[in-house]
Amino acid sequence: MASLIVPDSIPSVAEDCEQLHKAFSGWGTNEDLIIDILAHRNAAQRKHIRQVYAETYGQDLLHSLEQELSSDFERIVLLWTLDPAERDAVLLNESTKRWTSNSQVILEIACTRSSHTLLLAKQAYHARFKKSLEEDVAAHITGDFRKLLVPLVSTYRYEGPEVNTTLAKHEAKILHQHISEKEYNHEEILRILTTRSKTQLFATFNHYNNEFGTAITKDLKAAAAEDDFVTALKCAIKCLVTPEKYFEKVLRSAINKTGTDEWALTRVVATRVEVDMNVIKEEYYRRNTVQLDHAIKRDTSGDYERMLVALIGA
Amino acid sequence: MASLIVPDSIPSVAEDCEQLHKAFSGWGTNEDLIIDILAHRNAAQRKHIRQVYAETYGQDLLHSLEQELSSDFERIVLLWTLDPAERDAVLLNESTKRWTSNSQVILEIACTRSSHTLLLAKQAYHARFKKSLEEDVAAHITGDFRKLLVPLVSTYRYEGPEVNTTLAKHEAKILHQHISEKEYNHEEILRILTTRSKTQLFATFNHYNNEFGTAITKDLKAAAAEDDFVTALKCAIKCLVTPEKYFEKVLRSAINKTGTDEWALTRVVATRVEVDMNVIKEEYYRRNTVQLDHAIKRDTSGDYERMLVALIGA
Repeated sequence: MASLIVPDSIPSVAEDCEQLHKAFSGWGTNEDLIIDILAHRNAAQRKHIRQVYAETYGQDLLHSLEQELSSDFERIVLLWTLDPAERDAVLLNESTKRWTSNSQVILEIACTRSSHTLLLAKQAYHARFKKSLEEDVAAHITGDFRKLLVPLVSTYRYEGPEVNTTLAKHEAKILHQHISEKEYNHEEILRILTTRSKTQLFATFNHYNNEFGTAITKDLKAAAAEDDFVTALKCAIKCLVTPEKYFEKVLRSAINKTGTDEWALTRVVATRVEVDMNVIKEEYYRRNTVQLDHAIKRDTSGDYERMLVALIGA
Repeated sequence: MASLIVPDSIPSVAEDCEQLHKAFSGWGTNEDLIIDILAHRNAAQRKHIRQVYAETYGQDLLHSLEQELSSDFERIVLLWTLDPAERDAVLLNESTKRWTSNSQVILEIACTRSSHTLLLAKQAYHARFKKSLEEDVAAHITGDFRKLLVPLVSTYRYEGPEVNTTLAKHEAKILHQHISEKEYNHEEILRILTTRSKTQLFATFNHYNNEFGTAITKDLKAAAAEDDFVTALKCAIKCLVTPEKYFEKVLRSAINKTGTDEWALTRVVATRVEVDMNVIKEEYYRRNTVQLDHAIKRDTSGDYERMLVALIGA
């Protein structure tokens, strides 16, 4: 499901480092060379390159990249080159600082990652920021958003295949009742969304649909127009049970905006290429009848465009 | 700090298993032999014994022990023999079911374990009960207790030595303000207690004491007499910053009761022997001018007594 293309035969790590170092030397930077190497190495290989680069040239590769590159191209290369757990930690930390529209990023990472992947991000957060994700989210976000986001980033969900059907029916009823009464921030809604396993939630939302005739996301959609918190709830549900649809929507909004939302586009590409980008691409095509790489090419340019297209594996 | 005594030279695992199997054979059970072996093996050794025993005799050692032993002796042997993470999972699961007075156990485990140890317990909970600790605590406990306990079991605290002094002063003030106004369940109190690192909290409580002239636990003590939730808050604070004092108190209450509280005595011994039992023993002596093993001998009898005393290393 990952879109990353790693050639069958690749140069040694030492050669990769030498080439990258060359790319930074002399007048100007050889961006094509950077893309050729970094966009076609997996997480373990990039980590190894960073290690050997630091040992050989006495400087963090990320620091060199930061000095040489700029704007959107810089951001995609830096985010991509980071270890996935560290990348999530960096994105989360950014989002705790400017939470206005960025609580979405917290929600996205908390709900689309597996329990283990989220744990690795929290460990990377400890190592890099010398504090916990939980304390930063709790300290910087207030009100209903805090009540939703803190448990979402804290919980260590069960991931087995078991479904308790009685429970699913019971909790579908609880959700429907509070949503009907417009009690969107009711603690029972929050409890169910923030603690149950994704498989269990999937069953619960199915029962909701079967029993009450409308999908839970549809029931929330009307209220979401006027209430950011309801939007967040809807978004959490999509992230939990249909992440590929959630990411397709983020890409669609990012690309179709007047003025591309590079911030979102970069984030989704950097974080999903090694996970489920091919599923997202299929979903994108199904929804837009345009291939994602064509849409991206139409909307971006230069090194940034080349890097994105190399990553999503046109 | 652990009180466990493992002899310098011990029999092979196969011999241990054979001896244990013999102890169960024929008429009656050889309890002394069980104590001699199991009370003097560390977690890794006990795990190995369980593996080899199952391979050799086709039965889980715990199941054999369950069949042969009874009452308090059975419980201490079973709890002790379990892997520490699985033991915590079992204790937590019991407590979500009969939560009346047992929310204390949840609180104790959540606050006295390191982040990593708590994580291992949560993983063991997944494996054994096919669901998450968070969902069980959230589903079975309600009201203010839920608001305290769910984040306590969920959070993955930072454990580095860094202290932010400005923050400690600021949050000491927040705590003092809400406690003065008897808003014990205020979400800011819960936020601070459930997300900050233990080192940071230690500094915060020190500032509280310095700035306002009374320890935070003292300020809570008066209200605790009439309010179980305040008792829980006080208990969480003790568990977080002075666990040895907390455990001394649990042991003291368990032993000095009319009728020993074997449930609590067994739990504390089984869970602390390999961690900090020697510190707890010192604290017990300091507070009661009686050695813990003497107090236990006076209050218990038979195999149960012998097992406890063997474990706490008289």
